[in-house]
Amino acid sequence: MAAAGLAAGAFAVGRATAAEGSESPDPTGSDDAFAFRGKHQAGITTPAQDRLHFAAFDLTAGSRAQLIALLKAWTEAADRMTRGLPAGEVGPTEGAVNLPPDDTGEAIGLPASGLTITFGLGPTLFRDARGRDRFGIADRQPEALRTLPHFPADMLDPRRSYGDLCVQACADDPQVAVHAIRNLARIGFGTVAVRWSQLGFGRTSTTSTSQSTPRNLFGFKDGTANVKAEETAAVEEHVWVGADDDPRAGWLAGGSYLVTRRMNMTIEVWDRQPLGEQEEFVGRTKDSGAPLSGGTEFSEPDFTMPGSAGPVIPKDAHVRVVHPDFHGGARMLRRGYNFVDGSDALGGLDAGLFFIAFVRDPDTHFIPIQNAMAKSDALMEYLKVTGSALFAVPPGARAGEYVGQALFET
Amino acid sequence: MAAAGLAAGAFAVGRATAAEGSESPDPTGSDDAFAFRGKHQAGITTPAQDRLHFAAFDLTAGSRAQLIALLKAWTEAADRMTRGLPAGEVGPTEGAVNLPPDDTGEAIGLPASGLTITFGLGPTLFRDARGRDRFGIADRQPEALRTLPHFPADMLDPRRSYGDLCVQACADDPQVAVHAIRNLARIGFGTVAVRWSQLGFGRTSTTSTSQSTPRNLFGFKDGTANVKAEETAAVEEHVWVGADDDPRAGWLAGGSYLVTRRMNMTIEVWDRQPLGEQEEFVGRTKDSGAPLSGGTEFSEPDFTMPGSAGPVIPKDAHVRVVHPDFHGGARMLRRGYNFVDGSDALGGLDAGLFFIAFVRDPDTHFIPIQNAMAKSDALMEYLKVTGSALFAVPPGARAGEYVGQALFET
Repeated sequence: MAAAGLAAGAFAVGRATAAEGSESPDPTGSDDAFAFRGKHQAGITTPAQDRLHFAAFDLTAGSRAQLIALLKAWTEAADRMTRGLPAGEVGPTEGAVNLPPDDTGEAIGLPASGLTITFGLGPTLFRDARGRDRFGIADRQPEALRTLPHFPADMLDPRRSYGDLCVQACADDPQVAVHAIRNLARIGFGTVAVRWSQLGFGRTSTTSTSQSTPRNLFGFKDGTANVKAEETAAVEEHVWVGADDDPRAGWLAGGSYLVTRRMNMTIEVWDRQPLGEQEEFVGRTKDSGAPLSGGTEFSEPDFTMPGSAGPVIPKDAHVRVVHPDFHGGARMLRRGYNFVDGSDALGGLDAGLFFIAFVRDPDTHFIPIQNAMAKSDALMEYLKVTGSALFAVPPGARAGEYVGQALFET
Repeated sequence: MAAAGLAAGAFAVGRATAAEGSESPDPTGSDDAFAFRGKHQAGITTPAQDRLHFAAFDLTAGSRAQLIALLKAWTEAADRMTRGLPAGEVGPTEGAVNLPPDDTGEAIGLPASGLTITFGLGPTLFRDARGRDRFGIADRQPEALRTLPHFPADMLDPRRSYGDLCVQACADDPQVAVHAIRNLARIGFGTVAVRWSQLGFGRTSTTSTSQSTPRNLFGFKDGTANVKAEETAAVEEHVWVGADDDPRAGWLAGGSYLVTRRMNMTIEVWDRQPLGEQEEFVGRTKDSGAPLSGGTEFSEPDFTMPGSAGPVIPKDAHVRVVHPDFHGGARMLRRGYNFVDGSDALGGLDAGLFFIAFVRDPDTHFIPIQNAMAKSDALMEYLKVTGSALFAVPPGARAGEYVGQALFET
């Protein structure tokens, strides 16, 4: 509401913004705005915002021209909304009374709130279930962009999995994140339908050394060993697709792969486990997040340190099972969120972790680690994976470009 | 995280608080704490916080003693959590390693965040579906505490309706609200099960003149004419149950009735309506919220002012249909929240308004107004009520008391 009296003219009741007409992020407090355009898409190495609205869409129209028109319209709207502007040029209340507004209005008066909008392309966009080339792009489908394999303990709900396209909207105000997804859905009406959508209320990872580590619904710090934006070499190595990674998919250079996993926690059972066992499952202490082998949160775990019976960090502890030392050094940039979606049929909360990770190659950086976790991680007893999806995230759109342009035009 | 280094001793890793050992709300910024104990329950006239986690519970155990023990335990835990303390005295990480913690830990380091916890009692607590007196309190069931009647256009999901008990947790941080409900469910394990639960991400009403009016997902300001805490006479008249209101239910004096209605909006259809029609449905302008008869947001609507065809505020406009002038002056204290719960089967968002109102008597202050709305409000074309519940909200628990004590012990 801070800038309610600031704006004048066409956006007299439009959204407040500090970044209008500029592509540089605003450095001041509540009006934080991150540039939508650039070498990479925003919302990956951007310091993780507090709230999430994630949506997967399916194409309901069949032409390549419609798909490109949608990506162009989404790019323009995302560029506007991440500046704190209405989704369309007219805005929510300034248009003719006989026309629907080109912005839905619930974000009037709210600042940009750190909004980032990140687009991804699912495997079914390239080939449908019968293998047909839907939009003339099948020969450019990245090798690694396939439906994820079935993992042990997966109990996937197809209505919470997969999708032709995805949009990740992150912001510090949930109304701003919801407004973004809702307006992109509105713009896509007739071309796309929402396949599934997920709200996340609390981030579970930090993507910047400037952020403190938040807690997941197990009550433990989550994301201590995450790839951070400041680790520029690690980001290049583990997050961004390289120009020579995949000869079929040069268009993806500078992009990434986005994995989502909806991990329900059986929190009512977890809450009855003794503190010591919870810590052995995780391999870290609950208070400081230090490895059970000692030190502080950011100390490297010592997997050889002996305990009273076997190593002090058990072999099936989460921190050991997924540790880069056992996966060829592979690391992920995680950006997950806590969720609660009402209640389940057993009188518990339908709650858990909506896992999001950005990786350079899911075949080396996600699938082997997920397999190890599903097979031998002690935490799996308290997890049930109900949703899953993989998307290719194109590089950023520069001025005048639309997201994914290189896929269609080079 | 601000006070992470503040605490010492037993709560070294406990939650930060500015109100520890005091019942007075802390006047400073982020550590806002509202006293749990008092004449009335908090969370009603308290300035509406930004986030909601609401849960309805069913009793799974049958004894009056178990019910009372639960209410005592919940009262103690709520008193602690609203001060920013862990749910139990030992806390999330300070206990013995061979015992489950008495707090789940995800709120470690977070301040009180304006948390309020408000308890309610459903009609089925007094008499079950077969009319049986479950806990020896049937003769004290308030006259007005009955399952709400079926309203036109109700499409109720029983898994989102009703309940023996309810808990409304409001806070400025959703992780704090979720932590509160989750720990109360944990404490109630074996006595209660979650029947349904609802997260709300954005408040849609203001309950204080110090707050600006937020917007619902129709994009309109919502709650302009709400009863505000500062209107002390109106609060006495319309919100609190009087000592002589119901001879069977003297225990409810100083309490209230809580109505919830989960109102799905067909936002994809709404978004295609012209601005002028949207404003005629509501009876207010979309930008300032002023009545269509003119003035500012807080101007009284003039229902007689002529327009080009009929009154300028149409007879079926929402503002007219529910206006106190047509309902014997009855007003509600609304405290609703926007929600998005994933997607619906039609490729839209499962989104809308989780309506919450506190009223002195649902027979005069809610049911007639809801009937009028269901029958003749233009907005109903864009609303589908999928959940509904009514609870009696006992007065506040004073020092040494538990919530609802007068129901059992006087």
